[in-house]
Amino acid sequence: MKDFMDKDFLLDTDTAKMLYHEHAEKMPIIDYHCHLSPKEIYEDKKFRNLAEAWLGPGDRTGDHYKWRSLRARGYEEETVSGAADDYKKFMQFCESMPYFVGNPLYHWSHLEMRRYFGIDEIINAENAPAIWEKANKALETLTAREMMYKMNVKAVCTTDDPTDSLEWHKKMAEDRTLKAVVRPAFRPDKAVHVEQPAFAGWAAKLSSVCGKEITSLQDFLDCLAERVAYFHEAGCRLSDHSLEPVYYAPATYEEANSVFLKGLAGAQISSEELDKYMGYVLVFLAKQYNDHGWVQQFHIGAMRNNSRRMYGLVGPDTGFDGMDDANYIAKLSGLLSAMDINDGLPKTILYNLNPKDNYSLNILAGCFQKEGVKGRVMTGTAWWFLDQQDGIRQNLETLMQVGLVSQSVGMLTDSRSFLAYPRHEYYRRILCSMLGRLVESGQYPASELPRLGQIVEDVCFNNANEYFGFNIKL
Amino acid sequence: MKDFMDKDFLLDTDTAKMLYHEHAEKMPIIDYHCHLSPKEIYEDKKFRNLAEAWLGPGDRTGDHYKWRSLRARGYEEETVSGAADDYKKFMQFCESMPYFVGNPLYHWSHLEMRRYFGIDEIINAENAPAIWEKANKALETLTAREMMYKMNVKAVCTTDDPTDSLEWHKKMAEDRTLKAVVRPAFRPDKAVHVEQPAFAGWAAKLSSVCGKEITSLQDFLDCLAERVAYFHEAGCRLSDHSLEPVYYAPATYEEANSVFLKGLAGAQISSEELDKYMGYVLVFLAKQYNDHGWVQQFHIGAMRNNSRRMYGLVGPDTGFDGMDDANYIAKLSGLLSAMDINDGLPKTILYNLNPKDNYSLNILAGCFQKEGVKGRVMTGTAWWFLDQQDGIRQNLETLMQVGLVSQSVGMLTDSRSFLAYPRHEYYRRILCSMLGRLVESGQYPASELPRLGQIVEDVCFNNANEYFGFNIKL
Amino acid sequence: MKDFMDKDFLLDTDTAKMLYHEHAEKMPIIDYHCHLSPKEIYEDKKFRNLAEAWLGPGDRTGDHYKWRSLRARGYEEETVSGAADDYKKFMQFCESMPYFVGNPLYHWSHLEMRRYFGIDEIINAENAPAIWEKANKALETLTAREMMYKMNVKAVCTTDDPTDSLEWHKKMAEDRTLKAVVRPAFRPDKAVHVEQPAFAGWAAKLSSVCGKEITSLQDFLDCLAERVAYFHEAGCRLSDHSLEPVYYAPATYEEANSVFLKGLAGAQISSEELDKYMGYVLVFLAKQYNDHGWVQQFHIGAMRNNSRRMYGLVGPDTGFDGMDDANYIAKLSGLLSAMDINDGLPKTILYNLNPKDNYSLNILAGCFQKEGVKGRVMTGTAWWFLDQQDGIRQNLETLMQVGLVSQSVGMLTDSRSFLAYPRHEYYRRILCSMLGRLVESGQYPASELPRLGQIVEDVCFNNANEYFGFNIKL
Repeated sequence: MKDFMDKDFLLDTDTAKMLYHEHAEKMPIIDYHCHLSPKEIYEDKKFRNLAEAWLGPGDRTGDHYKWRSLRARGYEEETVSGAADDYKKFMQFCESMPYFVGNPLYHWSHLEMRRYFGIDEIINAENAPAIWEKANKALETLTAREMMYKMNVKAVCTTDDPTDSLEWHKKMAEDRTLKAVVRPAFRPDKAVHVEQPAFAGWAAKLSSVCGKEITSLQDFLDCLAERVAYFHEAGCRLSDHSLEPVYYAPATYEEANSVFLKGLAGAQISSEELDKYMGYVLVFLAKQYNDHGWVQQFHIGAMRNNSRRMYGLVGPDTGFDGMDDANYIAKLSGLLSAMDINDGLPKTILYNLNPKDNYSLNILAGCFQKEGVKGRVMTGTAWWFLDQQDGIRQNLETLMQVGLVSQSVGMLTDSRSFLAYPRHEYYRRILCSMLGRLVESGQYPASELPRLGQIVEDVCFNNANEYFGFNIKL
Repeated sequence: MKDFMDKDFLLDTDTAKMLYHEHAEKMPIIDYHCHLSPKEIYEDKKFRNLAEAWLGPGDRTGDHYKWRSLRARGYEEETVSGAADDYKKFMQFCESMPYFVGNPLYHWSHLEMRRYFGIDEIINAENAPAIWEKANKALETLTAREMMYKMNVKAVCTTDDPTDSLEWHKKMAEDRTLKAVVRPAFRPDKAVHVEQPAFAGWAAKLSSVCGKEITSLQDFLDCLAERVAYFHEAGCRLSDHSLEPVYYAPATYEEANSVFLKGLAGAQISSEELDKYMGYVLVFLAKQYNDHGWVQQFHIGAMRNNSRRMYGLVGPDTGFDGMDDANYIAKLSGLLSAMDINDGLPKTILYNLNPKDNYSLNILAGCFQKEGVKGRVMTGTAWWFLDQQDGIRQNLETLMQVGLVSQSVGMLTDSRSFLAYPRHEYYRRILCSMLGRLVESGQYPASELPRLGQIVEDVCFNNANEYFGFNIKL
Repeated sequence: MKDFMDKDFLLDTDTAKMLYHEHAEKMPIIDYHCHLSPKEIYEDKKFRNLAEAWLGPGDRTGDHYKWRSLRARGYEEETVSGAADDYKKFMQFCESMPYFVGNPLYHWSHLEMRRYFGIDEIINAENAPAIWEKANKALETLTAREMMYKMNVKAVCTTDDPTDSLEWHKKMAEDRTLKAVVRPAFRPDKAVHVEQPAFAGWAAKLSSVCGKEITSLQDFLDCLAERVAYFHEAGCRLSDHSLEPVYYAPATYEEANSVFLKGLAGAQISSEELDKYMGYVLVFLAKQYNDHGWVQQFHIGAMRNNSRRMYGLVGPDTGFDGMDDANYIAKLSGLLSAMDINDGLPKTILYNLNPKDNYSLNILAGCFQKEGVKGRVMTGTAWWFLDQQDGIRQNLETLMQVGLVSQSVGMLTDSRSFLAYPRHEYYRRILCSMLGRLVESGQYPASELPRLGQIVEDVCFNNANEYFGFNIKL
């Protein structure tokens, strides 16, 4: 029996151990997709205690994975996402821990205690008081930035609305004490969702930010292009779109503009109209990204706010979003092809939420390569709800079988928490385990191990460093 | 090499063996979802020979799994589901057995011979005569009830039409010799399928049973509510719906009533109308179930009577049903949310037929939890066609990764046969194998083994005992 | 650590080794589905060098799998599918090989070097020059036919248009020096795709080949029936349809004829019309196949020519096809049932492209069995994009759990290359690995090993030999 989460956790062969300890472990982290607050990084946030850092400050922001598991246990919402007593929330979580057997929370939580706080105790009710004391002591000096440094994070991309002033990013750019690259990412979902009640308001905000009247789609696109340039200036090199799932149909400017005007007027918009408008705007934006040398990211298939009851009580983005099962490959093919045909398809990463799409999405990505680029279009790492062991293994297995894992840009956290970085370690251990098995079972030659070690380092750091243009020197 | 199906069958680590032999094995069975005949239990059916008990009495009722495999071998239908000679049918099945390599029938059949009859021989043509003799001898005293007792079955829920008088259930309630709890379950599929030719006839039957004229949807719903109360009185604590796949759209009473009236008149009903009617009726029934403290079950995605040729020859429910691939998550979300919003969402178990829905369904369930209930909405165990090793492993793996296996209510047979109980053993061995590997590979601490043993006992028995309100004392 | 790809490659238990070396290895190959050129077989093609034989002659024909991986590496299209220097193409491929870790190309390529050329070197940049020299030397005598003989190929079915004269097949039938059976297969996709611009032209060609005017669907079907008879005469015993995905609706002759006439006139055809026309024609053809005792093959779910840019540059069938995610089980059920109801459903093999359909397709196949035939309808082996290790394992696992692997007709290459036969070895090793594990883990009795060895031989050769009516004597 292996010891619980020892140094060789998840490393089930000697080759896996070698690949991890000699190659993966030492590589820094580039967390190219997350939801950290630029303000909190700039201000170097200090946490009042472990409950705030680990479970959320009590204002409905925090770790959805932990909340969902606590809700399934039947706890009161106030003690989950709300303002209940911090110690009560912490104790409730620790008591629940043994019942999370098999769930990634069990591993993530223990990794978090170990890597940030040096706390090796099993998390349960008995050990909770000691953990509370020790962690809170550490938090006196373990600020947001120190957490990043401790995890060897060299670069982070936040997620930002096109109308954002990037105030905190600009301040960080001038802050010589900050020892990590922090970049914005351009997320124009609100520009695309013409059917939503908030659309006209967002267009007005965009107009105001750009100091430019918006009365047509052309005006709107001009403003978006201006914001792309503004973000580029501020260091942004990637965009991010949530496609729910994928809308696309060929459209003329006139067709797209007429849908745009309906959206401004708050009129009802049909599914066919959405196809045309979204397709048109996404193709336009892709061209902008391509002209600036950006990477675009599409994550596909979220289904949001499933419980109207809980939406009424605690609002959006509180852990009630799900995974859609809609088919979208044909529309996505049409969309990528429309971008590609006029040389307007940038480097693109496709993330699927539903694992049933692993194969079809990888195969589609392989149809849109380009001379001179390694992985012009590629599938991304196991996303939201799949960033656990089974999800990561299936993601990597599919990528290996019908793509090139050697060119993967590796893991991301997609997280709002400074304590989420051990998810990179989790991913790296699984990666090394899978590659190690190939060698140990005679499927990859031991004589090529130096190259395989290099591939591990590439996937952990070098590929992302190059693909996103960070050019960080080690 | 491990011995064939020895006491440690499927138990591949020491921890798995410990969890199974010290915890799982001793727990009684609650088979909360099956299709046993209440009459046969009450009358304590005696079987004429092994062919009848194992393969079916020859009247087109019996074990579909066995029939489908025999048909794939090309045998005549009369020797499969029909009235051919019992010994011929038995021999044909035994001869086929080696060719079922990898199929769960191979394991189920051997478990059945071992656990009920103490027959350890390999099933094949050579051993068939001895098996026949030995089993038939045992069947002289091994009646339906004795089969249940031998398998340590403490509770069973049958499946019953709302118009059923529950005559046999009432008799069993007064039968002091019966050593197991037998409850009805409320399955109102015919109330929901307004589009089917049989709808008006069923509504007439319901009217007659309730002694109440039905001229509107309100009358119809009143009768259904009355039957829920009647079933409750008879001990029923759970309902069961087959959603094929899921119909739902918001609807007013007037809209639903107009579809209802079309159904009574045998008029054509559109898919949009079905969405409204079914949604309305399901939301109504859910509220009833919730008021009575019941659990509702939805099993989703059957596609029935695929071969019209065979339907003509042998009728429905004879092994020609299949697994649909339709998308339904968005509609199911809408349906659950509509139930939830007015506090009318009872405890609910969602079963998927198609494994492609494992992840999206588990994630959706996690969006509908409630304070004070462990697993208000949960996914069920691997259902029909997935109740085999690969299906169970995928089901449990998904549940572990994005849900809480510790709260699972465990296995059910969904079977028409008194010989199906070893499927609980099969499931428990797989469960212990998976949990055992977590411990042995350092993913769950050995120091928490006492808790893990408790969790195994909970999943095998205690969770179902509590969730369904059996409150059986051990 | 196992040696790289030694004689026990992928054979992870003693039983697997025994099953492979004593049973699978010696069985000849029947490649009942491939895209080899009958002309090249007849003329016994000689290759100018390893690049031509391995990567393609430089005229946009060749191995898509290799091309797709090279494109993902960012190489110029001319060096991938085009007419660039052979040695440059070869070197580029060898240099890339280490970065194909985990991809089936890594194994296939090494098997190809070993089995045809006796080259055991690891493929990489360093060893490339020696490989080039040694292989080119061997190619002086290793012609197309010699490649087939070396791989113990006893029978091959090519893929042929109904209008084909089968000139080369006829010549081969009279060639006493040819030591393998080579048969045509009937692939009437162009007869079914009434919506495509090429339809009228193809109908004219059919008319000309049959010497018969075509002015109605009846004329068209008469011609098709004539070609079925013509192919039958030339030894054809199976047909092949690409369903993309599945169109079917019940239709009268008049309805289908009216769609046919629109197709001839080049008019726009709706999705509903396609359902009716395709359903009608497929049911008609199935009856023809059944009358001739043929096997029909449906492969379902390709999505073609995804990149319009690359389609413009290099045309169709060059590696830009993908895997659709559309739902189709209900329509396929309707189609098979329509064939079955009038006794016009021949032996049928269903191949899915998307692995999400593994379970539903196997279950559906099980609903259409027939007395006197083993596996009247069955699912096929892991198809295009799934013919790799993960795809094959999932395919076999599903087949075992809900079907009968013992009746499988085994592997095919679906390939345009004479160097693709090691894919049969790859499949057989995986099959033996999976069956071996069942025995070693106590899931199948060691006492039945002689029968299991026979089953392995059946799946590798005997089943296909019987199912397709080759009747080759060993």
